[in-house]
Amino acid sequence: MEGVTNAGPGRPRLTARRRPGGTARAEILDAAAELFTTRGFAATSTRHIAEAVGMRQASLYNHFATKDDILVALLADTVTPALDFAENLRPLDASPEVKLYALSYLDAAQLITGRWNLGVLYLLPELRSDRFMSFRADRDRLREQYRALAQTVLDALGDPASTRLAELPFRLVESVISARADALEGTPIPDAAVIAGSALRILGWRQDLDPIHTEAAELIANAETSTSSGADAAPDNVDAMKT
Amino acid sequence: MEGVTNAGPGRPRLTARRRPGGTARAEILDAAAELFTTRGFAATSTRHIAEAVGMRQASLYNHFATKDDILVALLADTVTPALDFAENLRPLDASPEVKLYALSYLDAAQLITGRWNLGVLYLLPELRSDRFMSFRADRDRLREQYRALAQTVLDALGDPASTRLAELPFRLVESVISARADALEGTPIPDAAVIAGSALRILGWRQDLDPIHTEAAELIANAETSTSSGADAAPDNVDAMKT
Repeated sequence: MEGVTNAGPGRPRLTARRRPGGTARAEILDAAAELFTTRGFAATSTRHIAEAVGMRQASLYNHFATKDDILVALLADTVTPALDFAENLRPLDASPEVKLYALSYLDAAQLITGRWNLGVLYLLPELRSDRFMSFRADRDRLREQYRALAQTVLDALGDPASTRLAELPFRLVESVISARADALEGTPIPDAAVIAGSALRILGWRQDLDPIHTEAAELIANAETSTSSGADAAPDNVDAMKT
Repeated sequence: MEGVTNAGPGRPRLTARRRPGGTARAEILDAAAELFTTRGFAATSTRHIAEAVGMRQASLYNHFATKDDILVALLADTVTPALDFAENLRPLDASPEVKLYALSYLDAAQLITGRWNLGVLYLLPELRSDRFMSFRADRDRLREQYRALAQTVLDALGDPASTRLAELPFRLVESVISARADALEGTPIPDAAVIAGSALRILGWRQDLDPIHTEAAELIANAETSTSSGADAAPDNVDAMKT
């Protein structure tokens, strides 16, 4: 217990703010993300979350009515930026391999650099309930964006094994979740460019990846400047991509 | 409640046996696998498992002292056959690409065809405790077998990006766990041959996969006949592979 402090107007808080975000809502989400990924969703109560923020449980309920609502908000943040990017990508004048590389890069970078490895929650049996239907629908839409782009690349390459391969880029990108979970054991996490390049190689792409990378970096940089909340659409290490 | 029946010698059981395996131990493991993957590990108690088998909780404790012990046994079954196969593969006179294809095929087929999708449990935070150290060590050894084979393939291909790609075949194979979890939503599960072929393509392998598949099928068939418990070492659909 760090003692009672007064963090601005309203009721005094049990502890000082110490989580990123700057708002009570952001702190609740951060504390919940930590607890869900390290202690487990079922084993975490709203009381645990309130305690981790240094907030009364009643105050937490002002922001989220249930634990499920917190999980819904966290899961949406893992899918929405990539989905928005993919949907904005569709009308753009770029080749399908550049688009697929850019989507894979942005999505993988976000899954790798997010403060908590929230993708581990995708496999929770709890997500099968109706409460999470909207998240499942968004993730399905994202998967379909990957599949459609991959199929276009395959068609251009004239590969007869095509339809069975088109699902794999999405799976490869999400495999960074497992790599990141295992990284606690000291194994390396692949970087986003390796994942994006491999997504094309799986489909039979054999040409140089450097020009694809350069073009994809431009698509991502443009998306970053054209969205009002650029920080959401571009991962932290997007600057590293430009070098 | 299906009523009390007497399933052979010993105490009467609350319900008739209805799970595969033929032994109480196998039935407990099957019931636990179903509950852990559909209800969640934290939300399942040994009482739930005993009820699902139609057994008294005290009888369950004759086979497993704790819920963790049941999970340890289930997890071992998901890794041991592929690990044994990989270790037996090392001294054999086959090319690294054939060995990597065979390992990927066998492992993917097993993850796809197992009665329950136990791989979803790999991401549980509970597995980080010492109780699961042995499983984590076995899975690390399996990952290292994949990595070493992949690196040998990469070295032969002379790819400079090599070391960062060598982790990906293992990740791609395990991605069938996520595909299978999503299959509840009606999305297709890739088949083991597509996964095994893609594991080579990621590494830059560009030649025909048919002769690789044929040779790998022989390695798997030989492993099947040379082990005492062949059913463990070869997946259910290994016959389909020979055609």
